[in-house]
Amino acid sequence: MLPNKAQSGGELAQTLLAPKSVAIVGASDDLSKTAARPLQFLRRSGYEGRVYPINQNREMVLGEKAWPSLASLPEVPDHAFIVTPTDHVIEAVGECGRLGVRVATILATGFSEGGAEGHRRVEQLQDISSATGLRILGPSSIGVVDLRSKFLLTANAAFAEPDLPVGGTFVASHSGSLLGALMSRGKARSVGFAGLVSVGNEVDLSLGEICSATLNDPTISGYVLFLESMRHAKDLRAFAIEAARRNKPVVAYKLGRSAQAAELALSHTGALAGEDDVAEAFLADCGIARVEHFETLLEALPLVGRVSPNAIRGRAPRVGIVTTTGGGAAMVVDELALRGIEVTKASDQTFANLAKAGVKTGHERIIDLTMEGTRYEVMKASLDTMLNAPEFDLVVAVIGSSARFQPDLAIKPVIDSAGAGKPLATFLVPDAPQAFARLAEVGVPGFRTPEGCADAISAAFRRRTPRVPPAGRGCITATGGRQLSEWDAYKLFEEIGLPHAPAARLPIDAEKIELPLPYPVVVKILHEAIAHKTEVGGVILNVGSEDAVRAAISRIVDSVRQKRPEISAQHVLIQSMTTGLGEVLLGYRKDPDVGPIVLLASGGVFTEIYRDRSIRLAPVDLQVAKEMISELAVSRIFTGYRGKKPGDLDALAQAIVSLSQLAVSDKWDVVDAEINPLIVRPAGAGVLALDAVVKLA
Amino acid sequence: MLPNKAQSGGELAQTLLAPKSVAIVGASDDLSKTAARPLQFLRRSGYEGRVYPINQNREMVLGEKAWPSLASLPEVPDHAFIVTPTDHVIEAVGECGRLGVRVATILATGFSEGGAEGHRRVEQLQDISSATGLRILGPSSIGVVDLRSKFLLTANAAFAEPDLPVGGTFVASHSGSLLGALMSRGKARSVGFAGLVSVGNEVDLSLGEICSATLNDPTISGYVLFLESMRHAKDLRAFAIEAARRNKPVVAYKLGRSAQAAELALSHTGALAGEDDVAEAFLADCGIARVEHFETLLEALPLVGRVSPNAIRGRAPRVGIVTTTGGGAAMVVDELALRGIEVTKASDQTFANLAKAGVKTGHERIIDLTMEGTRYEVMKASLDTMLNAPEFDLVVAVIGSSARFQPDLAIKPVIDSAGAGKPLATFLVPDAPQAFARLAEVGVPGFRTPEGCADAISAAFRRRTPRVPPAGRGCITATGGRQLSEWDAYKLFEEIGLPHAPAARLPIDAEKIELPLPYPVVVKILHEAIAHKTEVGGVILNVGSEDAVRAAISRIVDSVRQKRPEISAQHVLIQSMTTGLGEVLLGYRKDPDVGPIVLLASGGVFTEIYRDRSIRLAPVDLQVAKEMISELAVSRIFTGYRGKKPGDLDALAQAIVSLSQLAVSDKWDVVDAEINPLIVRPAGAGVLALDAVVKLA
Repeated sequence: MLPNKAQSGGELAQTLLAPKSVAIVGASDDLSKTAARPLQFLRRSGYEGRVYPINQNREMVLGEKAWPSLASLPEVPDHAFIVTPTDHVIEAVGECGRLGVRVATILATGFSEGGAEGHRRVEQLQDISSATGLRILGPSSIGVVDLRSKFLLTANAAFAEPDLPVGGTFVASHSGSLLGALMSRGKARSVGFAGLVSVGNEVDLSLGEICSATLNDPTISGYVLFLESMRHAKDLRAFAIEAARRNKPVVAYKLGRSAQAAELALSHTGALAGEDDVAEAFLADCGIARVEHFETLLEALPLVGRVSPNAIRGRAPRVGIVTTTGGGAAMVVDELALRGIEVTKASDQTFANLAKAGVKTGHERIIDLTMEGTRYEVMKASLDTMLNAPEFDLVVAVIGSSARFQPDLAIKPVIDSAGAGKPLATFLVPDAPQAFARLAEVGVPGFRTPEGCADAISAAFRRRTPRVPPAGRGCITATGGRQLSEWDAYKLFEEIGLPHAPAARLPIDAEKIELPLPYPVVVKILHEAIAHKTEVGGVILNVGSEDAVRAAISRIVDSVRQKRPEISAQHVLIQSMTTGLGEVLLGYRKDPDVGPIVLLASGGVFTEIYRDRSIRLAPVDLQVAKEMISELAVSRIFTGYRGKKPGDLDALAQAIVSLSQLAVSDKWDVVDAEINPLIVRPAGAGVLALDAVVKLA
Repeated sequence: MLPNKAQSGGELAQTLLAPKSVAIVGASDDLSKTAARPLQFLRRSGYEGRVYPINQNREMVLGEKAWPSLASLPEVPDHAFIVTPTDHVIEAVGECGRLGVRVATILATGFSEGGAEGHRRVEQLQDISSATGLRILGPSSIGVVDLRSKFLLTANAAFAEPDLPVGGTFVASHSGSLLGALMSRGKARSVGFAGLVSVGNEVDLSLGEICSATLNDPTISGYVLFLESMRHAKDLRAFAIEAARRNKPVVAYKLGRSAQAAELALSHTGALAGEDDVAEAFLADCGIARVEHFETLLEALPLVGRVSPNAIRGRAPRVGIVTTTGGGAAMVVDELALRGIEVTKASDQTFANLAKAGVKTGHERIIDLTMEGTRYEVMKASLDTMLNAPEFDLVVAVIGSSARFQPDLAIKPVIDSAGAGKPLATFLVPDAPQAFARLAEVGVPGFRTPEGCADAISAAFRRRTPRVPPAGRGCITATGGRQLSEWDAYKLFEEIGLPHAPAARLPIDAEKIELPLPYPVVVKILHEAIAHKTEVGGVILNVGSEDAVRAAISRIVDSVRQKRPEISAQHVLIQSMTTGLGEVLLGYRKDPDVGPIVLLASGGVFTEIYRDRSIRLAPVDLQVAKEMISELAVSRIFTGYRGKKPGDLDALAQAIVSLSQLAVSDKWDVVDAEINPLIVRPAGAGVLALDAVVKLA
């Protein structure tokens, strides 16, 4: 046994993507078999490293010498692709480890998604990796492709494609088959790739770690991720932080926006897909631009790379549109507006500048040049004027038929103007492959559909500089734990500076009822084992006198005894009846994938009905807390809605910040906290927690 | 003057789309000019009718004889395309009318969107049309194209395209430039067209009337509409009803889902674009399948034609998925689920049938055949089994790389199975133009993106048989009108069977206050000129005694006198305080475009905040009223939500039906009615209007 040392990122990138030698364990001689593909593809591509097909039953495979085993090779290969059936994988990987192979890629399925037996196999693989330093890609990886080194180590039939275009984009995907789709669609759009990796089950190498290993490669300019879950979120974050530091944009499509697809991801990859808006918050926190449409993955990078993260905060992006076709531009306006992005009308100054530049146009929200816009000087002058106008964050050029019939001429002003400081995007209304090829050559953002154009613009402007999480944070499995009583939860809130409605605790057999609170009051059962007090008849509202309190206690105690006989509660909690302008739900929890999150949602029944909520990774600062408030639709009732007083949004923001600080608390290891309702009172009067459920680790 | 007779649909279709002779008034000799295009295109296409270029300044135009005027021609042409500048249009159209030309198409702008001067021109055109029987297409029409008769009478540069594919789809569009985009994109997808019309301002011929004229053409199998407004909704409805009767599906894309784009449509075409969900309700009522994505316009027809309208009511469509690529299928699942469509797991029987047919697959929600699915017999057996399974309304085949590399083989099972009674859709995951060409040849539905696939499936299943509106309905301009007092509105409600909370009317100077209602009560100012009573301090809640009523009246009268001194109210309205499980808003109004509509929305502040509402054209029956209730998110609180009693949804449905009957009332010409709130009480206890604003014509 000759254990490998841990590989540095550069070494991993080399052995994974551009090894000097590779073995294909289980290479087939039968061209109809998947296991015959890697050798074929490597030979066809002209890969210059040494390739060793291994087949213990044949002397020749696809016309070349086959080796009986890894041990029989004249050298220890850098990389081995195990394409054997599931049952032979552990043995082959074990041999890789013993011999000192650096990376083993595993094609077979039947591991993470293979039930108890599969999980046992996963453990065996992980044991081999730890013991020997062998790095494992997969299982269930369809392979790895580096187009620069012509290393096409893949069983994906799509790589039979001739003339694969090479580019600066690196692709990593939870789905192997979609790599083929990205490649063929990319080719049709003249978008090429540096490399593509199917990460499979990620039992050792995670998607984030693989991408990190490539970060020093100067020929890689950006990343495209196809995600099915938020597995190994920590590695993904570490990669994203470094990518941002190097100005390499990262764009992701994530499955599972619907609950159904999330369930599917589970059965498909053995991953636990969490709630989609938690993933959304995580990706945003990492500075990864998430797109909604599959094809936007191919289109978005050049645009995302031109929009600086954090360029715009606290307002919607302002877009200017120049077009030769009003109908085409109107579709973009529609799609942008559906995403909350305003198409801004040019200022009087800009209209004057357009006129000075000889551009004749109406004073509409879009600059519709009609046929005139097919003239180079008119389109160029319009774009330059718009790109220099301070009222726009981005300009979209919408080009009609000329993009098809005179691609060079039609696209030239766009390409010539795209160097300006401000980002310029192009939507080509007709089918215009040649114009797209020109745009792709020079890296100018071009879009095929109004939906894709708006999707990418929205994703680009939502992108933020990734945040480095404070120490002590991370992914924590949040199961079990001890629940606090409401009284104890309020004690905790007092320590973290989160205001609650004044409360008193009374023994259930109190002789004398003297309350430090004004009547009417609420009487609630107090016990750490009762989270849903109303369900056990444990809450009585609007209690107006000492006698009524006594009667309420007695009714509550009777009801709780009947419904939860195992519980012997000793106290009730008394609070004054409190009203405000409205109520919200404020929550905190440790998500098993992404770690601590803070959640603000509409209160009462509307939390569930409208799913009106905003999520961020915790902790947050006041600015982020205010963004969360503005994202909540129901916040409108706190901004002077229909003649009501404005709500105390400063206090609400401070409450969000306070609760989110639990993420970095040394003292409290809270796994779950929910305040529902948190009453929002008029400006200056603060917010008050009226209930609290807190669970400690 | 030789007035034309009105033309029948068939005659109009012929003179509009396949005339025997055509004049181009203002034909230019300068190839760089738009006005030179129609003659070029007609000559290039090989149109066999007689073409007369008219140019009063030149003897020759583009190498052929030019005529000085319409009157100088050897015959009266069927059709004239007026391509002169705006100022010369009226004169040319007048001459067309005098001579007996049947159709004049007008290219120039400056009419409907041209301010007061433009509107005067529109009236002149309409006068000429009425006086002479000349039919007018446009103004602002880029032209009309019939690919069968090779009649390319258009100034749209896109028709310079060679080899335009001919097909069975007829396109009508409010935007002229997008016709070019549809054509080039159609060509790339092997989707051809029968004809394409840019309808422009529709000052005479409306989009609906043009499409209607083509309905008897047996070579036209379906319609694609690009809409910017609901102008001439009556014609569109008449067309849609007849199209449905002939089993010719109609698919529409409508701009203006956002308020911004709606405003743009206004400036762009001079049309008034209404609220988008009113248009949505109208299109649905007409049996027109509305798609969300532009490109779905090209893809949806074959699928929409295979899903019978009304196939499914009262439940979500159930879709089965067979795939060679799990990742590709998961994207479709996600997009379907986001549209409320369930991907159904096969039944045990179906899994048994699959096994019997030799198909090996897991028991997952999607039938993932992996590589095995590239074998004809495996995919064919799977599709046939799924298409025969009663649990599915539609099956989607998701095909991976093989669609690109072996298009015939990969697509053959889909094509061979598509004849089954149940609809089959195909999403091709890679770039696969050849496979799309095969699918298009045989009319099997094929989709390029998961979003388009789900968009079309959703549109197809939402399609209904168009309803023939009851007599007396139609589009009515709902301006002005007389408002009823709340008391009079309740009298009206009593007549139409709409329950309201018991109410009493009291003179403001009543000596004795004897109420036929239990305390506590609400006291409200009563006057037909006060619609928003709270805004003038005209409402006091929770009034508990005779004295308190007296005090309330006095406070209300003082406040109203101060805020609206011009009003002298004589009465107040008294109602008992009433509560229920929740509240909704129920409304009725005559929309200026589409006519009477009924609206159900969440009540209180949530109407605006969540825009949670359902709209139908009025009148509606109980089944539709129940659909409206189920579409409202807030309805969940009436279905036994969180242990609450279920609400009286039968009574709510009946209230919707009653109010909607105003659309056919002989007695009441209501233009606007709003009940907010309508209180929903527990099952059996009914619903009660607590407020009412009613406006008569």
